[in-house]
Amino acid sequence: MTQRKGPTGEPGAGSTGEAQTPPRPPRARRPTIGDVAALAQVSKATVSFVVNDRPGVSPQARRRVRAAMDDLGWQPNAGARALSTRRWQTLGLVIRRPPELLSTDPFFPQFVAGIETGLAPLGYALVLQVVPDAESERRAYERLAGDGRVDGVFLTDLRVDDPRPTLVTELDIPALIVGPPQEGSGVPSIGVDDGSGIRQAVRHLRSLGHRRIGHVCGAEGYVHTESRRIAWSEALAEAGLPDLPPAKADFTGASGAQATHRLLDRDDPPTAIVYANDLMAIAGITAATSRGLRVPEDLSVVGFDDIPLADCISPPLTTARQDVPAWGHAAARTLVALTEGKDFQPVELPPVQFIVRASTAPPPA
Amino acid sequence: MTQRKGPTGEPGAGSTGEAQTPPRPPRARRPTIGDVAALAQVSKATVSFVVNDRPGVSPQARRRVRAAMDDLGWQPNAGARALSTRRWQTLGLVIRRPPELLSTDPFFPQFVAGIETGLAPLGYALVLQVVPDAESERRAYERLAGDGRVDGVFLTDLRVDDPRPTLVTELDIPALIVGPPQEGSGVPSIGVDDGSGIRQAVRHLRSLGHRRIGHVCGAEGYVHTESRRIAWSEALAEAGLPDLPPAKADFTGASGAQATHRLLDRDDPPTAIVYANDLMAIAGITAATSRGLRVPEDLSVVGFDDIPLADCISPPLTTARQDVPAWGHAAARTLVALTEGKDFQPVELPPVQFIVRASTAPPPA
Repeated sequence: MTQRKGPTGEPGAGSTGEAQTPPRPPRARRPTIGDVAALAQVSKATVSFVVNDRPGVSPQARRRVRAAMDDLGWQPNAGARALSTRRWQTLGLVIRRPPELLSTDPFFPQFVAGIETGLAPLGYALVLQVVPDAESERRAYERLAGDGRVDGVFLTDLRVDDPRPTLVTELDIPALIVGPPQEGSGVPSIGVDDGSGIRQAVRHLRSLGHRRIGHVCGAEGYVHTESRRIAWSEALAEAGLPDLPPAKADFTGASGAQATHRLLDRDDPPTAIVYANDLMAIAGITAATSRGLRVPEDLSVVGFDDIPLADCISPPLTTARQDVPAWGHAAARTLVALTEGKDFQPVELPPVQFIVRASTAPPPA
Repeated sequence: MTQRKGPTGEPGAGSTGEAQTPPRPPRARRPTIGDVAALAQVSKATVSFVVNDRPGVSPQARRRVRAAMDDLGWQPNAGARALSTRRWQTLGLVIRRPPELLSTDPFFPQFVAGIETGLAPLGYALVLQVVPDAESERRAYERLAGDGRVDGVFLTDLRVDDPRPTLVTELDIPALIVGPPQEGSGVPSIGVDDGSGIRQAVRHLRSLGHRRIGHVCGAEGYVHTESRRIAWSEALAEAGLPDLPPAKADFTGASGAQATHRLLDRDDPPTAIVYANDLMAIAGITAATSRGLRVPEDLSVVGFDDIPLADCISPPLTTARQDVPAWGHAAARTLVALTEGKDFQPVELPPVQFIVRASTAPPPA
């Protein structure tokens, strides 16, 4: 019961001892560093030294402090520990996206789940911010770095000429790019080759006999949109297939449907389309069907991501799957190491898996 | 340039002044509270008082401190401020779900995005943890509360007999249930009536002439699974329609397809099915189509959530939409108020919207 008393041994201020109405039971007070120091018969500074593994404490005192901590169930406050060790054991992830688009992206929740599997065993936590625009994004990084909330930050969804690698260097905070590297930025990166899934798609379609293979792009300005488009274009050239102009879109279903119609309106429409994500591919199947085309008999369709719906629709979608949780796990471990001052060690991630389902078939004769 | 010097005015340790290779430019040192105190000609304690809005500082000194903070671009360290005010300005969200199921849930990213719109203007941040099982979940709350990382926690995806309301009460940390309340727990809750979308679905189908309306349930043990099933059952009774046994499933596409086959295998198969989420409904359309049934001519299908794909498929899905970002926003504001010791104020959320698309029609004659 001693833990329920106030620090001075007095009962709570609200209690008179003779109240007419039953007093509220006093709340259990959490033990303090002072309680630990008193029980271990050392100073609070000594407790702090033990917690932070600093030299200058006798083995006997160290044992008494540990025993007192166990007896009282006291844990050092992360804030106090962070201030004394200058580390927070927290990483930051800022996602810039209009909230309504966030739920269309299968990457984000899987990546966060993967980060967690990397951080939890290390006792780290993730601070997450979702921001709508570039200005809020910049402020979010400045705040996270400036007030020391986090030890390091992830940079995801890199844009062409993205200012963030420069920003984190100015802010002097450890950072890790998730995705293709930004050459010359000096910020390390971790990711799989986005183009591999697209190249496998083109090879698969080519082997089925397709010669006119279109591409519906992701949102403009993203590095991964560019790398998927370039991989498609290079794979066509490599296979000796004619170039088609890529159809612009923005990862939403509506844009995927419109881009599909534009490709199919051409004088030389493609017999197969490779989409930059599954959502646009599924909308593309619906768009093609609405024109009286059958998938895959008249048009083959390939997605990217392998969202849970990809094999629930008709026809089940041929697509490329990245092991995003593994990616998040590796990114978390790598960024923690960087915050500890260790050198960057490139990590090998599981390769993209190309999954052939029923949305692809030989072209119409 | 004075900010680039070390605290003692010495150049960086690595620089000799006559290096043969160009020395790396010294890193910008962040200003400290000591710099602010020196410039404002006050003690560091006075700076701290000003930052924390405590009395006992003259208006002149207060102005000098503010001016010095602006001149130096100094921000109080959140950790130091939290220690002095006993508040972290951070809220915690623990999501218990196998990582591979996380990406099937449209609620989570939209809710996180909504939380952000509520927290950002208040300078709060969100600490997110994704855990795989009940034991890790309990430890996550204990750690967040125990080491003072967060001021308060959200409780989402409440289960029947969920131990968390009791746990947060024991941990003595402000908490807010997101979803239907847990009666008697004393933990306040914020949410919309999950059953409303289901009741509207049954009324819509009834008005089209359906009399045998089935239900495919969500994962067992969740409060929202139960409330959707009960709403369906009560709406049938209210409309004078025959009871059908609900088909068990778990929110995944595969389970939705299996449950659909079980319902359609009955001697008295339903002519319409209300699913506990869109993913199962879309898988149900594919399952029905694979049996030679047409949707909606032979079977009407209603989902729940209105995921971005719901209107990209064929036929576009009739479903119920909750304004999840608004919900997240309100939850964030409410939990911040609770952490500030304010009384709980129930919040009115936008009602569930029932969206009629092409997956529902009158039953076959």
